Amino acid sequence: MTFAQRLDRIAGLTEARLATLVGANSQRSEDAGRVPTRLFEALRHATLGGGKRFRPFLVVESAALFGLSEAAALDTAAALECVHCYSLVHDDLPAMDNDTLRRGQPTVWKAFDEWTAILAGDALLTVAFETLSAPATHPNAEVRLALIAGLARAAGKDGMVGGQALDLEAERSAEAQAPTVREILHLQSLKTGALIRFACEAGAMLGEASPEERAALVRYGDAIGRAFQIADDLLDAEGCAETVGKAVSKDAAAGKATLVGLLGIADARAALAQAEQDAVAALAPFGARGDMLIEAARFVSRREH
Amino acid sequence: MTFAQRLDRIAGLTEARLATLVGANSQRSEDAGRVPTRLFEALRHATLGGGKRFRPFLVVESAALFGLSEAAALDTAAALECVHCYSLVHDDLPAMDNDTLRRGQPTVWKAFDEWTAILAGDALLTVAFETLSAPATHPNAEVRLALIAGLARAAGKDGMVGGQALDLEAERSAEAQAPTVREILHLQSLKTGALIRFACEAGAMLGEASPEERAALVRYGDAIGRAFQIADDLLDAEGCAETVGKAVSKDAAAGKATLVGLLGIADARAALAQAEQDAVAALAPFGARGDMLIEAARFVSRREH
Repeated sequence: MTFAQRLDRIAGLTEARLATLVGANSQRSEDAGRVPTRLFEALRHATLGGGKRFRPFLVVESAALFGLSEAAALDTAAALECVHCYSLVHDDLPAMDNDTLRRGQPTVWKAFDEWTAILAGDALLTVAFETLSAPATHPNAEVRLALIAGLARAAGKDGMVGGQALDLEAERSAEAQAPTVREILHLQSLKTGALIRFACEAGAMLGEASPEERAALVRYGDAIGRAFQIADDLLDAEGCAETVGKAVSKDAAAGKATLVGLLGIADARAALAQAEQDAVAALAPFGARGDMLIEAARFVSRREH
Repeated sequence: MTFAQRLDRIAGLTEARLATLVGANSQRSEDAGRVPTRLFEALRHATLGGGKRFRPFLVVESAALFGLSEAAALDTAAALECVHCYSLVHDDLPAMDNDTLRRGQPTVWKAFDEWTAILAGDALLTVAFETLSAPATHPNAEVRLALIAGLARAAGKDGMVGGQALDLEAERSAEAQAPTVREILHLQSLKTGALIRFACEAGAMLGEASPEERAALVRYGDAIGRAFQIADDLLDAEGCAETVGKAVSKDAAAGKATLVGLLGIADARAALAQAEQDAVAALAPFGARGDMLIEAARFVSRREH
C-alpha cells in the first residue's frame, strides 16, 4: 500500500471508531429521560466527516513498528483524535480564534452555538480518557495508565493548553514583547508539537517498546511536529482559502508572530527541510520497517494543502 | 471531631494538594521558554481560596469506612475537586450561565477573560485524569483505571456535561416543552448528581470494597446528591446573595424550571427530607462507622448557605 492509501484507510477506521465513541452510552438506566440531542449532534459534527486523521495515522503506524495490528492501536488513535477535535472546537470559539470555517464546514459554535461548542469540547476531552481506560485499548493495565498519563501531560497545562495560552498571552497582552524564534519554537512544540509527539510515543507504549525505541519515536514525533507547524505557517502565508479549506493569512492579519514572519520564506523552507531530515534520521533504528513513517515525514513537509 | 471540624480539615488538605497539582510541572526541559503566567494564575483563582470542598469530604470519608487514611484518599479527592472547579469555570462563562460572582469573588472569566477561562477549565479537567493515573493515587493499577473510567463517565456526555446540555437545551430551545418533575430529577441526577455519586463510589473503589458496600455508597451518593440539589434550589428561591455568596433567584429570573418551582416550597421540603432519610438508610450496613456520612446528609439537608 502507498502512503496515501494507508492514510486514507486509517482515516476511515478512525472515523468509524469515533462514531461509536461519541454516541450516547447505550448502557443507560431504563428510566433515563431526555438525551441532550443537540450536544450529541455537535459531537458528531466535531469529530466526523473529514480530516486527514494524521495523529491516528502516527499512532497506528508507530505501533505497527512493533508488530501491532491496526485494531490493537485503533482506540488509542481515536482517543488522541478526540483530543485534537476538542482543541479545534474550543480554539475556534469567538473568544479564542473566532473561526467560522473548518475543513470547509461551519465550525461547531457557528453551526450550533457557543455553549454547545464549549460543552462538546469538554465532552470530547472526557471521552478520550474514558476510552484509554478501557481494557479494549490494551490488555496491560500499566500500559493504559501510561497512555493516560502521557496524553494528559501532552494535552494539558504543560502541553497543548499551555502552548495555546502562551500564544494568546503573547498576542493579546499590551506589555508582551514580540517573541523570538526560540520562543516561537517552544510555543509551537507545546501547542501543536506535544500531541503529535505523543501520537508517536503512544505507538511505542502500545508496542511495549524498549526505552531506546521509544526515545527514537519521540525524536521522530518532535521533528515531524516541527515540520507540520512550519508547513502550516508556510501554507498560511502563501496559500489560498480554497486549497487550505479554512481561512488563511489569519495569522498575519491578527499580527501573530510566526516563524515564517521572523525568518522569511526561504529560511523557513530550510528549517522545514531540516525537520524532515531529523525525522528520517530518528527512524534509522527501525530500518525498512520505518519506510511508511518516512513517507509521512515527506508528506508533511511537501504538502500543498 | 465534629462534622464541621472534619469538613474544615479535609478542605484544608484538599486546598494544599490542589495548590501543587495546578502548578507548572517542575520537570520541564532545561530549555523551556516562557510559562503561560496568566493561565497558571487563573488555575489558582479557579481552585484555591474557598469552597466547602464537599466532594473531597465525601471521597475521604467514604474511603475511611474501609480503613483508608486521609492521605490515601487525598489525590482522588483533589482530582474530583478539579473536575468540579472546571465545571464551575465553564458554566460561569457568558455563553453559559453568564455569572460574574462565585464564592464572593469574581468568576474566572470576569477576573481574567473568556479565553483564559476556557483554557483554565480545559487544563483542570486534564489535571484530574493525570492525577488519577499516578501511582500516588492508589498502589493498585486496576483501581486507578476504575477511578478514571468512573470519573470520565460521571463527568462527561453521559453524566455532568450531558446534564448541563439538557438544562441549557430545555432553557433555550423555542420548541422545548417545560420539563416534568421526573425530567428535572433526571437532569439534576446528571448535572450535579453524577459527580457527588461518584465521590462516594470512589471511596469504595479506593477501599476495594465488596460490590454490596459499593452499591450502598452509590445509593448514599444518589440520595445526598438529590438532597444537595433540592437544598440548592430552595436556597436560590428563598435566599439572599449575602448568605449564599453568589447571585440568587437567577433560576427564576432565567425562567428555568426547578423542582421548587414545580412542586412548591412545602413539597420540595418534603422531598428533601425524603432524600436525607434515603441517605441515612443507605448507610445502615456500615453501622456506627457511617456516623460522619450521616452528619453530612444532615448538613446538606439543613444548610442555610
